Amino acid sequence: MNKIITISRQYGSGGREIGAKIAERFGIPFYDNELITRAAKESGYAEAAFANAETKATNSLLYSIAMGMSAYGNQEVGFGHLSLDDRIYLAQSDVIKKVAEEGPCVIVGRCADYILKDRDDVVHLFVYADMDFRKERAIRIDNVAPDKVEEVITKKDKRRANYYNYHSGEKWGKATNYHMSINSSFVGIDNTVDCLINFLSKL
Amino acid sequence: MNKIITISRQYGSGGREIGAKIAERFGIPFYDNELITRAAKESGYAEAAFANAETKATNSLLYSIAMGMSAYGNQEVGFGHLSLDDRIYLAQSDVIKKVAEEGPCVIVGRCADYILKDRDDVVHLFVYADMDFRKERAIRIDNVAPDKVEEVITKKDKRRANYYNYHSGEKWGKATNYHMSINSSFVGIDNTVDCLINFLSKL
Repeated sequence: MNKIITISRQYGSGGREIGAKIAERFGIPFYDNELITRAAKESGYAEAAFANAETKATNSLLYSIAMGMSAYGNQEVGFGHLSLDDRIYLAQSDVIKKVAEEGPCVIVGRCADYILKDRDDVVHLFVYADMDFRKERAIRIDNVAPDKVEEVITKKDKRRANYYNYHSGEKWGKATNYHMSINSSFVGIDNTVDCLINFLSKL
Repeated sequence: MNKIITISRQYGSGGREIGAKIAERFGIPFYDNELITRAAKESGYAEAAFANAETKATNSLLYSIAMGMSAYGNQEVGFGHLSLDDRIYLAQSDVIKKVAEEGPCVIVGRCADYILKDRDDVVHLFVYADMDFRKERAIRIDNVAPDKVEEVITKKDKRRANYYNYHSGEKWGKATNYHMSINSSFVGIDNTVDCLINFLSKL
């Protein structure tokens, strides 16, 4: 495998587990949300991104206004400033670009497909699943309370969609944004991994 | 293969050819747009659908109004009447339901995924491709003039999207509406067939 693989996924679809298994099968590094976020916090990238971001913002009234209309969280923005969310996004983007520079890997979430869109050595995958499958996983793996599970899933998906749509200007879950999309509940996690490996092995 | 397979596809993506190859591999019937349309015209279904449709229409003002707002073509509608397009759609739907009743097959286009959405023995696939790949196919296979090809592709896709969105109330090309979506230009037609066969064989 000589490609960078990005995985976008619905909450509860098993996209993270599928990504980890693909990385293991190909013997390449695996980066999830948590790792990317930690790396962004621990590195000097946050400061660099912040400085860079402020330059952008003060250079463009439209950009500042757009930032103020963020759709995915509380924004502490004013003219010439970026919200905390935007600063984190930029720091995470730097981390994602850096790990991609290092070579083949699997990156889950964080708009990685959009952030790496200009590279021609990247494969974009989207994993989703039926609601019952997602509920069962959310309860079993994330210990979500059964009476709250549908609400939690809806909220998490909405947050992921907003995060993606806001930063990319594209539509989360639109098939043509990915090279392959698959319903993991239809054939199960291991068969999904197998289908994706089969696809990736043809590159 | 004991499933009915529907294939939605972008114009020029090779979805029809891929569908025919899948049908051949599994030894099941293959129905494309042309076959479905001819069957609807030749059978008594058109008349039956027409009668049925008029009942619906005169029963619902809202329905009639909605029909008048059709997004995909010229509509000869008035209060209590369905357009020619809507009558054809209903006749085609009957043909699609009938061939599905007969057993496993591959059906390309015509909102078949939406028309068969209540069956649990159906697999929905979406095939799309990069623009250069689609241009080359449109010029070579459909003899589209090279200087018109981009315009033709855009128009055909718009028409397919409108047709689907209008009849289904859903979004054409939204990954979660299908069990698998694949970019056929990424690995080529034969590899795409192989990936889909591999997926379908796990059911």
